[in-house]
Parts: sequence; structure tokens; C-alpha cells
Amino acid sequence: MFEQLGLIGCGLMGGSFALALKRAGLVKRVVGYSKSPSTTERARQLGVIDVEAPSALLAVSGADLVLLAVPVAATEATFKAIRHLVRNDVLIMDVGSTKREVIDAARRVLREQVGVFVPAHPIAGKELAGVDHADPDLYTGRQVILTPIERTLPAHLDKAEKVWRALGCQVKRMTPEGHDAAYAAISHLPHLLAFALMNAIQKQDEGKDFLALAGPGFRDFTRIAASDAAVWRDILLSNKEELVSQSRHFLRALQELEAAIKNNDPDALETLIDQASEARAGWRMTAVKPQG
Amino acid sequence: MFEQLGLIGCGLMGGSFALALKRAGLVKRVVGYSKSPSTTERARQLGVIDVEAPSALLAVSGADLVLLAVPVAATEATFKAIRHLVRNDVLIMDVGSTKREVIDAARRVLREQVGVFVPAHPIAGKELAGVDHADPDLYTGRQVILTPIERTLPAHLDKAEKVWRALGCQVKRMTPEGHDAAYAAISHLPHLLAFALMNAIQKQDEGKDFLALAGPGFRDFTRIAASDAAVWRDILLSNKEELVSQSRHFLRALQELEAAIKNNDPDALETLIDQASEARAGWRMTAVKPQG
Repeated sequence: MFEQLGLIGCGLMGGSFALALKRAGLVKRVVGYSKSPSTTERARQLGVIDVEAPSALLAVSGADLVLLAVPVAATEATFKAIRHLVRNDVLIMDVGSTKREVIDAARRVLREQVGVFVPAHPIAGKELAGVDHADPDLYTGRQVILTPIERTLPAHLDKAEKVWRALGCQVKRMTPEGHDAAYAAISHLPHLLAFALMNAIQKQDEGKDFLALAGPGFRDFTRIAASDAAVWRDILLSNKEELVSQSRHFLRALQELEAAIKNNDPDALETLIDQASEARAGWRMTAVKPQG
Repeated sequence: MFEQLGLIGCGLMGGSFALALKRAGLVKRVVGYSKSPSTTERARQLGVIDVEAPSALLAVSGADLVLLAVPVAATEATFKAIRHLVRNDVLIMDVGSTKREVIDAARRVLREQVGVFVPAHPIAGKELAGVDHADPDLYTGRQVILTPIERTLPAHLDKAEKVWRALGCQVKRMTPEGHDAAYAAISHLPHLLAFALMNAIQKQDEGKDFLALAGPGFRDFTRIAASDAAVWRDILLSNKEELVSQSRHFLRALQELEAAIKNNDPDALETLIDQASEARAGWRMTAVKPQG
């Protein structure tokens, strides 16, 4: 049980965490801060936070749990804003989709206190950004990846793991490097491809007509293209090397398929599609969230 | 009301059509044929068809409605198998995802009788192939594209439109060329990209570990990668030119995004993502199927 959650960033991810923590009875008070005062106010009106803080530092004041839920490029500035109130008994986590840059920022700013920071990536989200879509069930049944470093305090790491478990998550530990490589392949690259497809269609004169004809396959394939632009700008930039490397793997696989098509080679094409189809048909999401 | 549906291909698409037609009380008898006798037998056991035909020709014998629900590359051979029983009072339709090749096959084989063939593409499907997944609701609320040619008999076209409407579909008419260009962009290319992504991940040593970490975004993005290999081999090959052209549009859009990433240009990147995100957020599927 925590006395006070200091929530920095009262959007979808942060707001959902606050709601889930409250519902689980794990926190007495949520003090929230967002860059935009109207977001902070709305979060209070919705009951996502109890008290509006006029600065990140004041949200941290008196907190024994701090969640950074800001676009990853804002991490360093946020650490700087709060570092004067970071004590060893405060657990700080983030929810960023990339980990190496976030950890580098933490090292630079928190220095000898970096051990209180437990880098976290909950595998959850929605295409609807903002506190109005905060949902206490956003994290239920999802995976959460923790990427501790050698200086991470073991007691903090355990506590972080317990918090996410209490919210119904499956917790997994990885190295920051392993995390960033994996999510480049299974999340960042798919987003990049979905963005590219939408832009490619839109630029064509017939783009609007094309879109009016699209069905459920297109709907699901492009769902992630509706993601928040500022959030994904930061994620893609902060995982550039891994992303570019995964994009190369993808382009090779695409060229192989296209070669079979251009060569009118049905056998080669069927074999390649079959590999993809079998792999996808045999895949199941870990920690499946119940429908609804 | 039809006396007899001659169903050629008793898989997911054909079986679902038969079930929907029966439920709507629009047909007295369904005579079915599949290349694999075990499929035909299973279709009868499941009540999808009433009578098993030992050949495509015998399924057409006595039919006033014929549905070809075979991979598109099998269209020409199927027309050849049935042409001796094609009369002017029979309505023939297909369900193929590409239309120009199918129409060329119909012209070559049916010749002066090509007017009885109404090319149809219902925008529906599942990743689970086979008659066991046939579902009378597969087409409910979906769009169906009809691509008549100048020789298509107007009465047949009207009748085709009425059948699909009676099954709860929204019917749209397009030219075969317009259809194939549009579906290259919004369906065939997304399938190709999803296949390529699955293959790219699988080929890496860490592929299995990566897949174990994937979440709901990946699940939806790759859903279409589980599609049937033989069906999609045919679709991609039969729409080669349009597909390759759309792939080029896509690669240009991808390169533009990657250039912004490589140049560390957050503003350019955000603008490009924002275009995609706005377009997708503003898109709604025509003829939305009710949930469930």
C-alpha cells in the first residue's frame, strides 16, 4: 500500500495506472501533474487524480511511488524537474516503449540515486490518447517488461514487480538491449509499416475511394496507425538503430515475396506465404486479456 | 427464390454463402462439389450442402444459381468443367478477390454466354479456412463489389444484387480495373506486408523470443498473415501489376518516414505520423458488421 502516487503525465497510460491502483486499493492519494493544466484539471474532474500539482516536482513531494508517463523524449527533462525530491525510499517507474534512452537519461540525471528507478514497459495501449480514455482495465492481463540495470535496488525491483502483479499483469525481466531489439521487431516496425501504408494510400488521387472500400482486414492491419503522433515520434527516434535493423530484415523478406510474384513462381510464393501463415496461426499472445 | 444452388468449392466462402442463402429461405436445395471428396462429405454432414455432387458439372446440373468459390487460379478450369450445362437462365457468380483475371477466364471459356456470369467480391473472410468454419453471418453487414462487363446481362446483374442484399450486404458496382487497383492498395498489399513481417521475424535467431513478447498491436496487425496460402498465392499472382505498383507507393512512403528517423528530424517525423494517424482515426469501415 502506497501513501501517495506522484503521477507525471495524466494521459491514457498514466491515468489508467492511477485508476487501476486506486481500484486495487493500493494507494491512498494520487497527486498528478501534466504539462497542460487543462489535462491535469480534467484528470481531477474524472477522479483519475485527487490533487492537481502545479509542477512535476510538487507531484513528487510526499510521494512514495512516482510514475513517469510522458513521451520518452520528455524523460530527461522530467527527471531533472524532480531530482531534488528523489529519496531512496521512493519507487520511480516509467511506462516507456523503449528502454535504453530512458535509462541513459536516468543515469545522467539521477546519478548515484538511479537505483530507485525501475524501468517498466507495460504492453498495453489504445489508439485513443488522453485522460478521457483512461481505463482501470487497460493493464489487466497484459505483460509488463521490467528492464533493471546493475544498480537497480533489489527491494525496489521487487516492489515494482508486486505492484504490476497486483494490477493483474504478468511481469517479465529483460535487459534494456534485449527489450529494445524485441520491440523494434514486434511493435515499432509494425507501427512504422502501418503509418507508411496509410500515407501511401492517401497520397494517391484515388486514395479516398480506396479507403471507402476497405474491410475488416484493413481495419485490423491499420489500427495501430491511429496512434498518437508525438508518442510514436519519440519511440521511433529513441530506438532508431534497432528499428532500422528490423526494417532491413523486413525489406529482405518483402523482396523475397515480390521476387516470387514477379517470376510467376506459384510454388515459391506458396511456400513463403505458408511459412508466414503457419507462424501466425501458431502464435498466441502471452497473458491474454479476457474479451470485453 | 432459387430452386438449386450449385456450389463449387465448399470451403469457408462457399459454405458460408450456402448457409446464409438457406437461412434466408432463398434456396430449396444446395448441391455441392469440392475437389477433395472429404470436404464435400463434411459439407453435407454439417448441413452446408444437401447433396454431394461427384463433379463440378453435376453440381451445376439442374441449378439456377451457381457459385464458384475456388482459388482464383482454378476459375478457368472450373468454367471449362461446367460450360456444357451453362444456360442463359442460370446466374453464375464467383467470390474472387481479384476480378480481371477471373473475367478474362470467363470470356475465354463461356464466350457468347459470358453475360450470365456476374463477377462478385464479397469483402469478408476469416483466417480460418475450410467448411468447418463456414458461418451464415460471414457476409452480414459486409460490402459486396460487383464488377459487370459490357456483356453482363442486366437481369442477371439485378438478380445478383438482390441476392447479396437479401443476405444483408451493401452492394457496390465497379469496373474490374478499378476494383483490382483499389484492392491491391487496401487488401493485397497489406497481406503481402503482413506475410513479410512474419517471415522477417521468424528468420532471426531470436524470432521465437520476440514473438513471445508481442501484444495486441502485433496481434491485430498480423491477423491477416494467417490467411490461407493457396488462396493468397493465387490472389497475389493474379493482381501482380497493381500489387507491384502499390508496393512502390508504399516503399516511397516508408523511405520518407525512415529518412526523417535517420536524419533525427522529429518535426518531419511527427508530421508524417500525424498524417497517417489522422487519416486512420477518421476512417470508418463502410457497412460495419455489428459486433459478435
